[in-house]
Amino acid sequence: MEFYQDFKLGILGGGQLGRMLIQSAVDLNLYVCTLDPDKEAPCAKIAHEFILGDPTDYETVYKFGKDKDLITIEIENVNADALQALANEGKKIFPQPSCIKTIQDKRLQKQFYRNNSIPTADFELINDIDELSKFPHLFPAFQKLGKSGYDGRGVQQLNSVSDLSKAMDGPSLIEKQVDFEKEISVIVARNIKGEKEHFPVTEMIFHPVHNLVEYLMAPAQITEAQKKEAVEIAEKVIESLGMVGLLAVEMFLTKEGKILVNEAAPRPHNSGHQTIEANFTSQYEQLLRAILGLPLGSTKQLKPAAMVNLLGADGYSGLAKYEGLNDVLGIEGVHIHLYGKKITKPFRKMGHITILDDEISGLKQKADLVKERFRVIA
Amino acid sequence: MEFYQDFKLGILGGGQLGRMLIQSAVDLNLYVCTLDPDKEAPCAKIAHEFILGDPTDYETVYKFGKDKDLITIEIENVNADALQALANEGKKIFPQPSCIKTIQDKRLQKQFYRNNSIPTADFELINDIDELSKFPHLFPAFQKLGKSGYDGRGVQQLNSVSDLSKAMDGPSLIEKQVDFEKEISVIVARNIKGEKEHFPVTEMIFHPVHNLVEYLMAPAQITEAQKKEAVEIAEKVIESLGMVGLLAVEMFLTKEGKILVNEAAPRPHNSGHQTIEANFTSQYEQLLRAILGLPLGSTKQLKPAAMVNLLGADGYSGLAKYEGLNDVLGIEGVHIHLYGKKITKPFRKMGHITILDDEISGLKQKADLVKERFRVIA
Repeated sequence: MEFYQDFKLGILGGGQLGRMLIQSAVDLNLYVCTLDPDKEAPCAKIAHEFILGDPTDYETVYKFGKDKDLITIEIENVNADALQALANEGKKIFPQPSCIKTIQDKRLQKQFYRNNSIPTADFELINDIDELSKFPHLFPAFQKLGKSGYDGRGVQQLNSVSDLSKAMDGPSLIEKQVDFEKEISVIVARNIKGEKEHFPVTEMIFHPVHNLVEYLMAPAQITEAQKKEAVEIAEKVIESLGMVGLLAVEMFLTKEGKILVNEAAPRPHNSGHQTIEANFTSQYEQLLRAILGLPLGSTKQLKPAAMVNLLGADGYSGLAKYEGLNDVLGIEGVHIHLYGKKITKPFRKMGHITILDDEISGLKQKADLVKERFRVIA
Repeated sequence: MEFYQDFKLGILGGGQLGRMLIQSAVDLNLYVCTLDPDKEAPCAKIAHEFILGDPTDYETVYKFGKDKDLITIEIENVNADALQALANEGKKIFPQPSCIKTIQDKRLQKQFYRNNSIPTADFELINDIDELSKFPHLFPAFQKLGKSGYDGRGVQQLNSVSDLSKAMDGPSLIEKQVDFEKEISVIVARNIKGEKEHFPVTEMIFHPVHNLVEYLMAPAQITEAQKKEAVEIAEKVIESLGMVGLLAVEMFLTKEGKILVNEAAPRPHNSGHQTIEANFTSQYEQLLRAILGLPLGSTKQLKPAAMVNLLGADGYSGLAKYEGLNDVLGIEGVHIHLYGKKITKPFRKMGHITILDDEISGLKQKADLVKERFRVIA
């Protein structure tokens, strides 16, 4: 069956990543079905078919997958057992359920890096908080729950072994806090034939409090040798996983110049939004090419780019209003993506802005201007 | 009411232009409703709301428009009287119904050029074919019916006054055939404040038989002075119309170096598809910016671009198959847009391919390769 004629692509998750994936899928005539528990999810109005349901529920996912020709994900918090059952019946699922399982459990993910000699911060697995005291050399540390950590949830900073009031109970890992110079990301695609293509390294600047990316720049301002090393690591991760699809590998560049893997996401990623405007092929199209068995596209970058997440302003909840839209749309090279979320909450990702400029300095100025002028309020 | 929150944009026509307009409208959170008589129109599956109905029917258009916040078109063959009635009641309609009326009747359109001293080929209006003999100086000529001419329909080439067997009866115009060197196009936007922005001049290469664009290149390979003149003419057309929206002005560059307006379209246009990948702002986003009262976007071009229409191969009708997809998607800088049409027919526009390259010569090579390798068959 050809993908462009009555071919059903199922996407688990109906958030903004799915929304942009659908925009790209339209160009290939794909019929896209989305599964999400929120009837007002960003994909709800634009998916060809929108199914209300929980992607973490076995029966829901299994039933959703039965009549699809190909299944992918836009969040990793999905029922991988149901996907495995579908795969066992011969259903095409990319990324493969085994890869999703390895990544969705942060404990398995870290062990996977250790087992495959992929550089990552020192860590130990613990089953309850009493074990914290066994590893004083890892502090200051991050404690991470195995599952359902996302955007700072399920992650806790612990300054010392005795920081027990903040510690979370349950199976988790403690990871030595990395004193990093920069946080970078490489998005790499691998298709059914095993061909790989990576996007240029991107550099993230985090909000000092909320642990969300504040803005991002591509290409990263690091040395060529560092770029090469980062790409080699990202390619080693996807190759070791044997994964088909798109993998975003977030890495630390330490103060000593070492590159360590922080975590990976087997799907389109916040650090690749700018590829829609700035690169020959976007991360969304690349994912579709990879999982449809098409040749991967060129990832060459047309212009330096910045990406600003549009987060709900602190102190505002309710029907979203976009303040300063006219101002920012008047800046050359600015492109806005609103995610179709009716309700804003503090720090909710409501959209993003991509900025193109010939110069890195121009990007920084424009990104600052966007952050100064634009607010999502209620 | 803000456009990004429960704001209903109505589009008359549900073809490929509407489809790409919807892809762009998603970024602005617009709720898009489309009206088209074909239940399998390119917009059918991707519009937020798809209404089956005839955009040339007064009652259908009037009813469709009643609950919309803003109405635009993706074809000019619509019931402009119904739009005028809605406008009289205060409904926002861009382009304005009066502009649509002037353009949709080729006789009115040509008179408009003459009345506004806009250079165009010599012509005369006739009411029946007996009048042909009055204007021997216009031959060889094109005879054009006033209404419903599109892609070669309603247009007839007449070699001489006595070529009566080919002539069409009814109110029409006869226009002196232009011996042109090149056919070019300028797309210009004008927003509610009267601000204008034009895209770089594009150059079209027509199929020698079927009168459809075969491929297109931007920027056009003409002199800077010619570019300036073409842009001035296009801006004069939109200004004289007083139109808000997007206007594609197709022009002939004659063998003597004169620029004459051929015809205009008050909507996104085939000669602007490449702006999706090649320019800071696409023609689709620019139309939305113009009619929503936003600042117009920069039209700067990132790289030279070519656009190849993917037409149904001659001799094939039925469920479309895309032959050579893998080959062409392996070419660097190639991006495909399939229009979601199930059925192919000879010369039906099934999609297009945009090609980016640093060099004009590279564009030509890749365009030739695409045409050689790719076929839409059944």
